[in-house]
Amino acid sequence: MAKQKPRTLSGFMELLPEQQVQFDRMMELLRRSYSLYGFTPLDTPVIEASEVLLAKAGGETEKQIYRFTKGDTDLSLRFDLTVPLAKYVALHYADLSFPFRRYQIGKVYRGERAQRGRFREFYQADIDVIGDGKLDITNEAEIPAIIYSTFSSLGLHRFQIRVNNRKILNGFYALLGLTEKSGDIMRTVDKLDKIGPDKVRELLMAEDIALTADQAEEILTFIAIKGDNDQVLSALEGYRGRHELFDQGLDELTTVVKYLAAFGVPEDHFAVDLTIARGLDYYTGTVYETTMLDHPEIGSICSGGRYDNLSEYYTDKQLPGVGISIGLTRLFFVLEDQGYLNEEMNTAPADVLILPMTEDLTAAISFAARLRQAGIRTQLYTEQKKFKAKMSYADKLNIPFAVFLGEDEIKAGAATVKNLRLANDLTPEELQQMEAEGIYKQITLPVQEALDYLQKQLARQPIQTPIVDKGALAEKYGLDIPEG
Amino acid sequence: MAKQKPRTLSGFMELLPEQQVQFDRMMELLRRSYSLYGFTPLDTPVIEASEVLLAKAGGETEKQIYRFTKGDTDLSLRFDLTVPLAKYVALHYADLSFPFRRYQIGKVYRGERAQRGRFREFYQADIDVIGDGKLDITNEAEIPAIIYSTFSSLGLHRFQIRVNNRKILNGFYALLGLTEKSGDIMRTVDKLDKIGPDKVRELLMAEDIALTADQAEEILTFIAIKGDNDQVLSALEGYRGRHELFDQGLDELTTVVKYLAAFGVPEDHFAVDLTIARGLDYYTGTVYETTMLDHPEIGSICSGGRYDNLSEYYTDKQLPGVGISIGLTRLFFVLEDQGYLNEEMNTAPADVLILPMTEDLTAAISFAARLRQAGIRTQLYTEQKKFKAKMSYADKLNIPFAVFLGEDEIKAGAATVKNLRLANDLTPEELQQMEAEGIYKQITLPVQEALDYLQKQLARQPIQTPIVDKGALAEKYGLDIPEG
Repeated sequence: MAKQKPRTLSGFMELLPEQQVQFDRMMELLRRSYSLYGFTPLDTPVIEASEVLLAKAGGETEKQIYRFTKGDTDLSLRFDLTVPLAKYVALHYADLSFPFRRYQIGKVYRGERAQRGRFREFYQADIDVIGDGKLDITNEAEIPAIIYSTFSSLGLHRFQIRVNNRKILNGFYALLGLTEKSGDIMRTVDKLDKIGPDKVRELLMAEDIALTADQAEEILTFIAIKGDNDQVLSALEGYRGRHELFDQGLDELTTVVKYLAAFGVPEDHFAVDLTIARGLDYYTGTVYETTMLDHPEIGSICSGGRYDNLSEYYTDKQLPGVGISIGLTRLFFVLEDQGYLNEEMNTAPADVLILPMTEDLTAAISFAARLRQAGIRTQLYTEQKKFKAKMSYADKLNIPFAVFLGEDEIKAGAATVKNLRLANDLTPEELQQMEAEGIYKQITLPVQEALDYLQKQLARQPIQTPIVDKGALAEKYGLDIPEG
Repeated sequence: MAKQKPRTLSGFMELLPEQQVQFDRMMELLRRSYSLYGFTPLDTPVIEASEVLLAKAGGETEKQIYRFTKGDTDLSLRFDLTVPLAKYVALHYADLSFPFRRYQIGKVYRGERAQRGRFREFYQADIDVIGDGKLDITNEAEIPAIIYSTFSSLGLHRFQIRVNNRKILNGFYALLGLTEKSGDIMRTVDKLDKIGPDKVRELLMAEDIALTADQAEEILTFIAIKGDNDQVLSALEGYRGRHELFDQGLDELTTVVKYLAAFGVPEDHFAVDLTIARGLDYYTGTVYETTMLDHPEIGSICSGGRYDNLSEYYTDKQLPGVGISIGLTRLFFVLEDQGYLNEEMNTAPADVLILPMTEDLTAAISFAARLRQAGIRTQLYTEQKKFKAKMSYADKLNIPFAVFLGEDEIKAGAATVKNLRLANDLTPEELQQMEAEGIYKQITLPVQEALDYLQKQLARQPIQTPIVDKGALAEKYGLDIPEG
């Protein structure tokens, strides 16, 4: 029979089992972290009617959409989780309680140009708080706490949450009389990190924006305001009283900063940064970016902000909200690429591999059933292979324990447990030391004791984060920060 | 602005938050159950190249496929998780260790005719064990144990796993000299439950199969073999020695039955059923179906079987396997429809709602941070609403505890905890009784004690299954089984 060459489309991440376990662990920790803050899980279809999904979209996004017809229906794959949320909230408004706090982790689709580290199918992990009519500023102040505890729980430590407020920016441009140009200005200023102040000045004074040299200078001075949070806030106080919107933004930013410590965000993980605007037009208040201190070139790994009108394309209801999004697939790619994934994490499919040594498997099967009942992930290896091949299987899969059940063990109602994670070249002294601590290279015990022993040994594994932040370790122990 | 009417496509399940929590809990329990048996999680793209995905497909399936082009590429959405697995194993063969045990829970797409309870986008939850060249029969014997413990962990109890072996069927038709007609015969016999024996006889003797009356009778006699497992097996022994394939199938079935008890499957949850063939041609050994005892009309809620050649369209390698699949979206729909979902399950987005009563929120925020640190799901309610509206919010979301932090509490370093799940009309005696057990309708405690109290109260909630099997409860307490 002619064979079809198997392949996976480029731009589509498909992981090997060990990596998949790490990816899944990241998703599990995100779910847990979001749940701690009172967000409820949501799931929406990957496919939506095009006229619904694209009610707003246009330009660059629309070109990237996977759009097709099935029967008579014009369909599109979702390209983010925000538009489906906007639809969901408008559609189910009467059944929801506001503020409505939801998280969603799901795949989205964008037909981007294929490129290393760019994905056409990728997971986004979003949280949003949606108010009905109004939404208190405290919700905006809480977001940095969620970002902080989420990344910390994954094992990432050297990152900084950078925050700004669009009202401050819009208010500032208004007090300069540049409201109509503020969109263009912000998009230009957003490039500051990449192209530097001189090039930004040049663009601001170029034909399409056409600021005067004074105006450009005033903007550059403004966005150059730097320092710790108090310094930035007090510099901003110098502009107070000149425009209502600016003052309101400054009040909001002051509130966000005020509650940081109470929310448990360490000061060194947070910075007010006036250069951050977020390109998207719908942000109206606080905006967030998160950067890895040792890899600023990667850009923001978690962004978002406050918006006033989530569902304006579907309903007249005013539904303000604040949300953030993590591009999980890209983040995972970057973490792996930069050596951040925890190689010590237990990625084995099972904690115990039972190797029966008799033809009748009843005893082995019973023991497997008991282990599983006790919550121990157990695999029964029953293929007819040489002993060496069986051990190499356990080895390749990194399974921590093997259990042998031969005639002798079965007659004695016992099981032999072998610790596969211990090095093979331990000295007798080292072995003795370990045994004094209750750890055995190999030990035969009555089955119930063998179960207890396994449970105890498995509990010794520290909770393992999918990420190891070597930079943070180096910092902690006063070493040089290693190259990525 | 003109509004686009929000809608979700028909055939696409979109749940409200409470149901979503139940659905997610089902998925979580499936992941846990599959993990206990040593399966590793896998995720593959929803979109595949059409020539890869459709290497085998044809007929009815192909018509249902969501197929489209993007740029020059002919793409299709996966319609099951088996074909992507076949591709995955062939593609990553060199990086995998065999037997390869994977589970996958993911969305698949079929453009079926829209109909109540039929979905075009639905979750499948699959496990498969893939061998390299060979795969031991014990893997087939283990599957009923996985089905049993999986559904039990969800809270479903009144179900039966029905098992047959295709070699017995094929061997039986071979010994009747009907090998070439066996596919047609099995598809006809498969309808026995629905149309009854007379109609099956009629179809067997009709033009396209054209059996003699004797042959039809012999088949109907064979599939009418009934009784407990030992009775069925000993009836089958009467056919032994007439055809090698039959004998092999009988050996396999005997092994599967032999190990049931050791695997922990109660006999009343298992039946050998010779009428089960599974329509798909690729099953070659043990086949499985699972039916709800109180709702046989729903059909099988978990099916699968043994196959010899998973990836034959992609590779010359012989990759036998055994797997089962749960159609999760349909199952959830059916469970809800039949009143099986556990209404007592905690579906609240948070366990504690903090209601600050002061303008400065520092104390409330700090307490929220402490609760979250302790693993308690906490929401801070900061909207400017009347007290009644706040309590009604907690009520609607079924949040179990409210915490009040007013001037007095803050001054005293205390918090007032209110149990929202207790009835409002308790008598003073009932309240006293509860307080004797350490349960208070409302109590003010120093913050650390308040935290400990909340943790203790929340730990009192029994682990909650998403399913309540009223039939099993009725059976247990000797009541009539209620209508669905």
